[in-house]
Amino acid sequence: MDSYLIQVNGPGDHAPLLDVHLKTNGNSMSLGKVKGRKPRWAVRASEMSKKTFNPVRAIVDSMKVEPNPKKAMISLSLGDPTVFGNLPTNDEVTRAVKEVLDSGRYNGYAPSVGYQSCREAVAAYYNCPEAPLEAQDIILTSGCSQAIELALAVLANPGQNILVPRPGFSLYKTLALSMGIEVKLYNLLPEKSWEIDLKHLESLVDEKTACLIVNNPSNPCGSVFSKSHLQKILAVASRQCIPILADEIYGDMVFADCKYEPIATLSTNVPILSCGGLAKRWLVPGWRMGWILIHDRRDIFGNEIRDGLLRLSQRILGPCTIVQGALERILHQTPPEFYHNTLSILKSNADLCYAALSAIPGLQPVRPAGAMYLMVEIEMEHFPEFENDVEFTERLISEQSVFCLPATSLALLSSVNVLH
Amino acid sequence: MDSYLIQVNGPGDHAPLLDVHLKTNGNSMSLGKVKGRKPRWAVRASEMSKKTFNPVRAIVDSMKVEPNPKKAMISLSLGDPTVFGNLPTNDEVTRAVKEVLDSGRYNGYAPSVGYQSCREAVAAYYNCPEAPLEAQDIILTSGCSQAIELALAVLANPGQNILVPRPGFSLYKTLALSMGIEVKLYNLLPEKSWEIDLKHLESLVDEKTACLIVNNPSNPCGSVFSKSHLQKILAVASRQCIPILADEIYGDMVFADCKYEPIATLSTNVPILSCGGLAKRWLVPGWRMGWILIHDRRDIFGNEIRDGLLRLSQRILGPCTIVQGALERILHQTPPEFYHNTLSILKSNADLCYAALSAIPGLQPVRPAGAMYLMVEIEMEHFPEFENDVEFTERLISEQSVFCLPATSLALLSSVNVLH
Repeated sequence: MDSYLIQVNGPGDHAPLLDVHLKTNGNSMSLGKVKGRKPRWAVRASEMSKKTFNPVRAIVDSMKVEPNPKKAMISLSLGDPTVFGNLPTNDEVTRAVKEVLDSGRYNGYAPSVGYQSCREAVAAYYNCPEAPLEAQDIILTSGCSQAIELALAVLANPGQNILVPRPGFSLYKTLALSMGIEVKLYNLLPEKSWEIDLKHLESLVDEKTACLIVNNPSNPCGSVFSKSHLQKILAVASRQCIPILADEIYGDMVFADCKYEPIATLSTNVPILSCGGLAKRWLVPGWRMGWILIHDRRDIFGNEIRDGLLRLSQRILGPCTIVQGALERILHQTPPEFYHNTLSILKSNADLCYAALSAIPGLQPVRPAGAMYLMVEIEMEHFPEFENDVEFTERLISEQSVFCLPATSLALLSSVNVLH
Repeated sequence: MDSYLIQVNGPGDHAPLLDVHLKTNGNSMSLGKVKGRKPRWAVRASEMSKKTFNPVRAIVDSMKVEPNPKKAMISLSLGDPTVFGNLPTNDEVTRAVKEVLDSGRYNGYAPSVGYQSCREAVAAYYNCPEAPLEAQDIILTSGCSQAIELALAVLANPGQNILVPRPGFSLYKTLALSMGIEVKLYNLLPEKSWEIDLKHLESLVDEKTACLIVNNPSNPCGSVFSKSHLQKILAVASRQCIPILADEIYGDMVFADCKYEPIATLSTNVPILSCGGLAKRWLVPGWRMGWILIHDRRDIFGNEIRDGLLRLSQRILGPCTIVQGALERILHQTPPEFYHNTLSILKSNADLCYAALSAIPGLQPVRPAGAMYLMVEIEMEHFPEFENDVEFTERLISEQSVFCLPATSLALLSSVNVLH
């Protein structure tokens, strides 16, 4: 699949533009042995730090192209809704934090899994008859990134593998490889609105498979799975007895003609860790407020996974308390018009991009149904002067000052074989 | 050393009281092999999560004593200055964050190592001729806990060891063991105001030693090293070519008769990662704003350690942006009286505790010189009804409703031999 990525508001990578240049050597396993120490200075970076590799940054940093100085830069390469100022958060959200500051009651240490009252507020927000939740089922984290990190860290050991969508959000690979966990990529099908190739998915399962990551709505595809597709995914997980890590950070961010179903509401047996946060729906990604919802109605995770998450949370002690303190009000008092307004802007941007791109011979956009992303297939035969999507993207920057992400970076470089 | 710990404001453990009970089995290596997978549910917590073990929690949770219902609980077991309300943060600090909220300019993703302008503010705050710092030398982190985590993660590989003070802050062990790093405990000498036993320290160095942790001012000892003692520590590091992880979260929190010297100001060659944050001096531990200062004037860390820290920071993307945005103002505009006032309260509490404890036969407090802690030696022959410091602490709770930490928990259970 040769394609590149464009974004309704700016796509794909949690890690923003960095002022320090990251050198990436491709092979992350170069330091093989424990370092010998003699009384001479020889401080080497750890293997874990070398294995922590962001494929998007590797490709973007290697592009080294300058925008056209005659045109203003339009950066669509980052999933940050705040960049252009057209999607501000709601006043209620900032007011809630300001009141917390005034109260002076949220400056001390919270429990490492979050204040009990804040866990209750998240549980109440997501609780429903099909997937009941209580405070004890909630772990508050430093952003959805840490939620995913903790979920992976508790479910998988080094040498095990996880099933990850292709194309998909690069953080799954970054985190897994840093922990010595193998990544197996299952295909999404652009011709079926990026549904999972279920046969391919199931063929990848082996005795070392620790979990299945399901990202819905999708970064970077902008797709939203139907109820029946989610049920088929759950059937695979149930048959193979694999727990699910559901990345649902874009939950509820779907356009009006389509419905978002939290995957846990459709299963009574598959144990699920659902990761989410304030970043996208409340438009404050920098605040680093995330959570894990533990769905385990058959007691398959049991105390072991809950205790593991608690232990791991003690390493850095959870999210900022002044945001925690505001959580109940943010979740329960933000006016519904705010959500509607955000979605209507995203939808009209998506429609505009889709229509404009559809009119270009050789470009085949897939219409997004939610989130903030749009994927475009490039029929390379229409663009003989370009070798691949990376070159196409480079020229888009140097000629038009428009910065998109090449899907190569999101397809995780090629296949699972290059990862170890 | 049989002793227990009392605290001027509440000592010892970053991890606060938890509502979920943590089961600790002592031996963290019970799950030896990669789990076999068959199509039946068998989800186990990862080895890493089982190795993430907080020794303070293990002891405190196992104490299971109830306070005396006739007396109000006085909790001195936690290093949280906000608990009793006598040490509020300064209005300037909260005002700074409120203005950031009003501006709406700090809601998006920051670079994973922090905003450039905020790194500049931290560099300017700590910069001095003896230890110059620029923005590129600063990594902003989610609290000092994450600063320590990143520093350990970049410096040490599994199978290596680190040198850790005994008694010392429990997080060093918790983090190291979770990463498969061995902990070697060097002794602090109560009879020399908790100076390091330098001979013992140097005897522990071997070819697998990855770094030396120096905690000054000390949690839990309340001690502050003199310039000449710090120079002797640096001489060991220099002779053995071991980088230093300096936990300086209590930097500048010393009483008037004594001076705090940042260790990096006393060396021109030893590479040092100094960890700090807003938690203690600005009295907002829940805000999770920490940093690493990279001191490397001989280019021994070089790009490798800097790149490693950058890569690791991309896993969860740094601290909350609304606190980052306020950092310059917090550091540079908090009125000096605030710091003086905090220290004068801590000093008068320390004097009060010291005087009262000194009057009790069989208790030998060591007078604190800074931070928020006070260690007391128990001469057990004066207390024949108690087996050890844990029993003494239990009775203090059940009789007097006063909660201190037994030093057993801070001496990391006994020696390095029990750790693996």
